[in-house]
Amino acid sequence: MLSEMNMRRKTRQVSVGDVKIGGGAKISIQSMLNAKTTDVEGCIAQINRLKSVGCDLIRLAVPDEASAEAFGVIAKRTGLPLIADIHYSYKLAHMALDAGAKKIRMNPGNMRAEYSLIEPLAKRMSDLGVPIRVGVNGGSLDKRFAGLKEELALKESALECANLFERAGLKDIVVAIKASDPLVNVEANRLLAKECDFPLHIGVTEAGTLRSGLVKSSISLGALLAEGIGDTVRVSLSCDVVEEVLAAKKILMALKLRDGVDVVSCPTCARTQIDVEGLAQKIELMCAAIDEPLKISVLGCPLNGIGEGKKSDIGVAGGKEKSVLLEDGKIVGEIKNDELMPALEKLIKEKLKSKKLGKIGM
Amino acid sequence: MLSEMNMRRKTRQVSVGDVKIGGGAKISIQSMLNAKTTDVEGCIAQINRLKSVGCDLIRLAVPDEASAEAFGVIAKRTGLPLIADIHYSYKLAHMALDAGAKKIRMNPGNMRAEYSLIEPLAKRMSDLGVPIRVGVNGGSLDKRFAGLKEELALKESALECANLFERAGLKDIVVAIKASDPLVNVEANRLLAKECDFPLHIGVTEAGTLRSGLVKSSISLGALLAEGIGDTVRVSLSCDVVEEVLAAKKILMALKLRDGVDVVSCPTCARTQIDVEGLAQKIELMCAAIDEPLKISVLGCPLNGIGEGKKSDIGVAGGKEKSVLLEDGKIVGEIKNDELMPALEKLIKEKLKSKKLGKIGM
Repeated sequence: MLSEMNMRRKTRQVSVGDVKIGGGAKISIQSMLNAKTTDVEGCIAQINRLKSVGCDLIRLAVPDEASAEAFGVIAKRTGLPLIADIHYSYKLAHMALDAGAKKIRMNPGNMRAEYSLIEPLAKRMSDLGVPIRVGVNGGSLDKRFAGLKEELALKESALECANLFERAGLKDIVVAIKASDPLVNVEANRLLAKECDFPLHIGVTEAGTLRSGLVKSSISLGALLAEGIGDTVRVSLSCDVVEEVLAAKKILMALKLRDGVDVVSCPTCARTQIDVEGLAQKIELMCAAIDEPLKISVLGCPLNGIGEGKKSDIGVAGGKEKSVLLEDGKIVGEIKNDELMPALEKLIKEKLKSKKLGKIGM
Repeated sequence: MLSEMNMRRKTRQVSVGDVKIGGGAKISIQSMLNAKTTDVEGCIAQINRLKSVGCDLIRLAVPDEASAEAFGVIAKRTGLPLIADIHYSYKLAHMALDAGAKKIRMNPGNMRAEYSLIEPLAKRMSDLGVPIRVGVNGGSLDKRFAGLKEELALKESALECANLFERAGLKDIVVAIKASDPLVNVEANRLLAKECDFPLHIGVTEAGTLRSGLVKSSISLGALLAEGIGDTVRVSLSCDVVEEVLAAKKILMALKLRDGVDVVSCPTCARTQIDVEGLAQKIELMCAAIDEPLKISVLGCPLNGIGEGKKSDIGVAGGKEKSVLLEDGKIVGEIKNDELMPALEKLIKEKLKSKKLGKIGM
């Protein structure tokens, strides 16, 4: 499967403000605020943190009218294309549009799929050029589909709702199916991918804590993305929202679907001479927002450290008092272990600078 | 790929003490100590922590003669089948056998692949019933293979060494190929799996920090395990060794290759009423060593919380002051939010007790 990766599934393209989804666009990374939408300052602080690590699209819940109003204030103040998450109420969807939402997510499991309600919303969104995401969730599936296997039920529910919007005149449709079981999630999205040309938003719902969520999301999204399925990604984690963006970026990087700084570090063992975890963590966070491809290896000993370093842009191989630094596969010096971090930081900054200049020069 | 999961690759079987690898045995979970092997108390403390979370096999580095002696002391005191990690020296491999190692790992990139050195070791190991793991690593590949594509070079190096041991009379051979690039890792192991019937130890080398390592390992091992490849697993992480075991277990659980407690929790949003992350983390750690299948959902609001709870053995759906508790898909009560954790703990313990009794009763 991983060898067919360059064959991305063909889809129509939609625009969320200036961010394109599908139709060959770069796979975008999403997250959702967990601050209350009515807490305007809290939301703006989260949005700024998400932007600083490279989040492309941000969603806010609009559970009531006060939230819809706050949504408008936040949209104006940040100037970003924001997505409104709507449940239960068509009225709130219209209010979110009034407030400047650039995309609406609705969950057909919680909305009456009635053409008379869908039609005016669809027509208005089409006029505004605002896409809808039909987002079906394993935990809130419409009872009408209860008799089917979960993957089939999720697919049927999603397509029924998406097709209603399309029939009502809206072409700008993104579809998402999210199950909490990573294998069901893969199967449901495969079924969906075969039957439509809507761009797909992919993610595992209720994936769990950082530990559990990274495992489930990586397995499930890894399998789908490797098959060319998925146009925008959200990694749902029960923790700080920033981790969702870091995780999504790492998944896309591992599959060679995005560039960024790849920090290779060893698990440490009895041979380890330096604080591998500390150094790797610092470099990882320092470089989180960088979109340039760069491989940095941090290994605790010379055994694999020199070999990995030779395959990296920048490498360190821990030694007893001094460690070996490598650049472009060549040993460039020995540094005292307590001076390693500043030396590495300097080397990384210079390397990035030279890479960017190289690009401009081309 | 994920649909072919029940077809595990057929392999010969080896025994590491009483733990079987390959030939249809349960996929075992390994870790490697990062305490110095000469620090006997430190090693025993790590071993006990690893055992407490369900680690099946534990490896220790034997970089020198003092470590080989300490290895013997640790093996006697813990009574566990331990694996000795050997580089550079056949003499140390023999010393590890003297010290009671139940498996030897050697890296052909760091050992002279000479039949005259391999033969006496192979014969002795065959007599003792101790298997070897030929463990090839992207960072320390023998220069002779430098001209090949990495996946091919890794495969050729591994098979050459394994075949030498087999020719010398040792049948008990496990092979491992580890690249730090998750896609290269998948391809190299696929090539290897096709050409031999050795059981395979799989993992991503230098996978990085918890964040990066979970992503790379889950994508890579997820793809291999889903194709039936892999008989024993190590997740290499630059952090506390216990995390390696938790991660490996979660990967196997996500692929339905092991039972355990699956904590489903939501990413939290503006609708969240309770401390989802805190509750989920506590439950996850509390239940890390449990091998019974149990699904516990912790959701911040009733929106998806009731639905997920209905599909879980135990569920909680957060509410404003009180939260809904579910058991076997039915609402069993409302609990004040500050009394949730003890109530959940009690429910989980009772549920496990009833499940185990159920089993005994069968």
